[in-house]
Amino acid sequence: MGRTAPDLVITGARLLSTYTDRVLPEREVWVAAGRVAAVKPAGTARTLFSGRAGDFEVQDVRGGLIAPGLVDPHVHIESSMMTACAYAEAALLNGTTTVFCDSHEIANVCDAAGVEWMLRDARRAPLNIFLTVPSTVPATSSRYETAGGDLTPDKIGALFDRWPEAVALGEKMDFVQVAAGDRRSHAILAQALRRGRPVCGHIYGREYVAAGAASGITDTHEAIDREIADDFLENGAWVFLRGGNPATPWHSLPEAIKAVTELGASPKRVCVCTDDRDADDLLLFGMDWVVRQARDAGFSLPLAWSAGSLHPAERYGLDGELGGVAPGRRADLVLLGDDLVPRSTWYGGVRVVRDRRVTAPLEAALSRRYVYPKKAYSTVRLPVVTGPLRPELPAAAVVANVIRVATPGIVLRHERLRLEPAADWNEHLRRHDLCFVAVLERHGKTGGIAHGLLQNFGLREGAVASTVGHDAHNLIVAGLDEADMRLAVETLRALRGGVCVVRRGRVVASVALPVAGLLSDERAPVVARQTTKMKKAWAAAGCTLPYMGFNLIPLSVIPDIRITDRGLVTVPGMETPPLFEPAG
Amino acid sequence: MGRTAPDLVITGARLLSTYTDRVLPEREVWVAAGRVAAVKPAGTARTLFSGRAGDFEVQDVRGGLIAPGLVDPHVHIESSMMTACAYAEAALLNGTTTVFCDSHEIANVCDAAGVEWMLRDARRAPLNIFLTVPSTVPATSSRYETAGGDLTPDKIGALFDRWPEAVALGEKMDFVQVAAGDRRSHAILAQALRRGRPVCGHIYGREYVAAGAASGITDTHEAIDREIADDFLENGAWVFLRGGNPATPWHSLPEAIKAVTELGASPKRVCVCTDDRDADDLLLFGMDWVVRQARDAGFSLPLAWSAGSLHPAERYGLDGELGGVAPGRRADLVLLGDDLVPRSTWYGGVRVVRDRRVTAPLEAALSRRYVYPKKAYSTVRLPVVTGPLRPELPAAAVVANVIRVATPGIVLRHERLRLEPAADWNEHLRRHDLCFVAVLERHGKTGGIAHGLLQNFGLREGAVASTVGHDAHNLIVAGLDEADMRLAVETLRALRGGVCVVRRGRVVASVALPVAGLLSDERAPVVARQTTKMKKAWAAAGCTLPYMGFNLIPLSVIPDIRITDRGLVTVPGMETPPLFEPAG
Repeated sequence: MGRTAPDLVITGARLLSTYTDRVLPEREVWVAAGRVAAVKPAGTARTLFSGRAGDFEVQDVRGGLIAPGLVDPHVHIESSMMTACAYAEAALLNGTTTVFCDSHEIANVCDAAGVEWMLRDARRAPLNIFLTVPSTVPATSSRYETAGGDLTPDKIGALFDRWPEAVALGEKMDFVQVAAGDRRSHAILAQALRRGRPVCGHIYGREYVAAGAASGITDTHEAIDREIADDFLENGAWVFLRGGNPATPWHSLPEAIKAVTELGASPKRVCVCTDDRDADDLLLFGMDWVVRQARDAGFSLPLAWSAGSLHPAERYGLDGELGGVAPGRRADLVLLGDDLVPRSTWYGGVRVVRDRRVTAPLEAALSRRYVYPKKAYSTVRLPVVTGPLRPELPAAAVVANVIRVATPGIVLRHERLRLEPAADWNEHLRRHDLCFVAVLERHGKTGGIAHGLLQNFGLREGAVASTVGHDAHNLIVAGLDEADMRLAVETLRALRGGVCVVRRGRVVASVALPVAGLLSDERAPVVARQTTKMKKAWAAAGCTLPYMGFNLIPLSVIPDIRITDRGLVTVPGMETPPLFEPAG
Repeated sequence: MGRTAPDLVITGARLLSTYTDRVLPEREVWVAAGRVAAVKPAGTARTLFSGRAGDFEVQDVRGGLIAPGLVDPHVHIESSMMTACAYAEAALLNGTTTVFCDSHEIANVCDAAGVEWMLRDARRAPLNIFLTVPSTVPATSSRYETAGGDLTPDKIGALFDRWPEAVALGEKMDFVQVAAGDRRSHAILAQALRRGRPVCGHIYGREYVAAGAASGITDTHEAIDREIADDFLENGAWVFLRGGNPATPWHSLPEAIKAVTELGASPKRVCVCTDDRDADDLLLFGMDWVVRQARDAGFSLPLAWSAGSLHPAERYGLDGELGGVAPGRRADLVLLGDDLVPRSTWYGGVRVVRDRRVTAPLEAALSRRYVYPKKAYSTVRLPVVTGPLRPELPAAAVVANVIRVATPGIVLRHERLRLEPAADWNEHLRRHDLCFVAVLERHGKTGGIAHGLLQNFGLREGAVASTVGHDAHNLIVAGLDEADMRLAVETLRALRGGVCVVRRGRVVASVALPVAGLLSDERAPVVARQTTKMKKAWAAAGCTLPYMGFNLIPLSVIPDIRITDRGLVTVPGMETPPLFEPAG
């Protein structure tokens, strides 16, 4: 009612209203107990409570725009290689105060326990982190790969019941099985639907859109062009336009947004999201950057911000809490320039970023980051490597089932390559632009090692390796040299997980990821620096696939051919050819 | 996927898309198991399954528009004086397939049991009926009036837990108490908020908007002009534009919609609703009429329909089920002309209205209407009337506290009228344009009778009476003649509740409302006919207040003065003056 003074008054900025998609003249936001108490014309508090200046704090922010904190409707924190607490720092610097996180990477390694560790991490983080419960762990089955986790329908139900943060079912990745009526897939969908929880989607291909909708899926972040975006909207899905480093194939926003700007669809059910981000890309191409991409593509300034705040809150039914500057909402606020670049961020009424720098209260919070249990630090249980990491040299002529890299790098081509007998491997490698690839089971279950050949990967010498081999997260190593490949493997064993680039017997770059073999336990700037250095070494080694693309080589749900710890597998045929077949 | 034939194909109409606010070229809707299976270009099924014509039904609806059934976000079914099953018929004729109903009238009479009877009625009705749990029963307290119900916070919590239909807390009418931090009011709000359920509002006055929002209220249907509508939107509330018989003050849509059409607010959080409707007005001014009003005020044709379908579904987080024509949604559909007049309605894939007529399946459903328990038929427990219904004639000069009717009829003025001694009442009545009014406690609790005087009510002779005296629903009778007043009371006693018009010892019109003294147990056309006849007699008697306005005379939460079974009460002062005070 404006009868008593609030704790804090943030005064003088214009208001970016996500409720009405307008910019309103100078306002002030009254904050009490971490929430917005009222929004008034600028100067109201000073006039009303003129004799009581000491009763409340005033922060003068004239000249800018005040807006609600950004709400990212779909993100995998693990992709940043950071813990939730560390991720919070990067997010807040970008004006993001809420994320809906699908922690299916750690679930693939540590099962439901990993999801719960991450939820504890999330509760400690100075960021609103909601869970979209991982729905497709493992991505396929133990017939094709060895994963650490197996989220059954019952375990998923239990996560919903134990964690109020679990507000939706995460992207249902096995859309082909969903469309085919697979029993386990639908039992998992039912866990969400019977609790009235929304279901997030992951669908490639217009022919699957209606079947997904009929199965209860109500969003997508995979609309890659205007036609499929339009299809999704007409099939009742909220469309999350995904923006990301334009050097990657994940930056689909500019095409998908044309469903609105060219085909005339209403933007009311359109959001923006990040999905996956390296630590350094997160600082360069965060949610704020994606919002600016939407503006550049034709959305009005307030509408672009709404698509990154109120609309995602509405999608999850949390618009009473988040996504707008109104009484009763969390005081999660951002001060922007007219360029939509965040200058300062408030989280629950506390200024955590000021003039693009972390403030003392945030420093304090980040010094108290969640510590993962010991078990999380011992997930990389590799076999003792006794035999070679490269394949045996064929003694006779063979046809090799080779994985050929093709840009943009998601789909991998299946090449059947005739190899004549040769004196050593070098001749084959040079002639066919090949390198060795191996996947080592790392969950301590089978100790299996699978061998393969990569074509057009571009590696000039040495080896690269990673324990973030999607989705089962076995260790993948590629190289031209047996000794360097070994060194790469032993380096990651010693680091308890990570990624490294090795050249001539030397580790030239590495990022230690000791938590589940997926996450660093350092703060965001440290991880970003290490990642930048590693990516430079990676590119210098000549790799045509970026690090994140390399990690997808074992992902047995994307065409045409992949390699897991169990060997080669073709998609969607799901056949398991040997590396070498007798030449016909 | 379109691989197997559906049960039913509705083909040839253009599609009104509420998801993108566009009209799409000719489509066909495939229906299976009562839900939309797919939406395809018209003619697809005939081509795909050409050899299997008998496998599925085809309904050709060329020339029209197919749209989702309307979703009314705020309605009191009791205002129609019909049961839920009977209400369904009128709703379906109007293209409405879902309502969010606040049954606070029957709660005021029968407590939680009444709400539960109505929920059972709703489950039997061929209409999606959700409950917004009555939040303010009684409207004030036993100090001011005697009600039959008392919905405590615990009872409200139990309704949420027992009934999945209970998706929100109904309009919190005591907005002054809410703003003042009243303990019981906030305990009731907490029942919804802690379950993640939205809270509906009822606020008059711009100074209460922010306080309501801060208390968790996230909608309004009481925005009466563009400025307060704009305030509500900026305070994060969904705005339900209320349309109704333009002869009543409830038709606030044309002014409130100007927040969008003149002030430039986005319409994305704007809905339309009906709130209260007589049975006959429901057939004339239903949701479809309100949607057309929004179109006439400047909304595009698809946006107007969205405001009456998808937007309300989104407001309650049910857009995965309702509000659009997409796979997985209920096959609740309407066939419209370009004039937005519904021609045919499908409910769960069954055509229930065809060319504006009830079909055989609906006839069958309506013949199996829910029967309320015996207890519901014995709620009008009036005292034996021994004394007069008119006040004692004052022997000396007095000041009378008179209730003066003023148009538009919601607010009643407090008139202090000096009465000199007179030979009989007739002289006073004629000179001051007065009539008698009495309220009789009818819950069998106190047997109390309160007397008062009405000014400018216009009644020329006889009496009118009703057991629908908001919100405690005691019997209210007004008249010029003691005998006619008695006859009116005894008529309603015999009918076990209702409304009647009496003239010169004869009942000229009546509607029997034996269920809780609020509802007829007849079907919609019967109740509409009886209501029309009663309203004609009512107007012929000269009454300046319509029937529905008359029912509000005992509503002790609207200014300036009201009369309940306990006597006169002023609002908002909440004083209880006597009818006569000694003249000074």
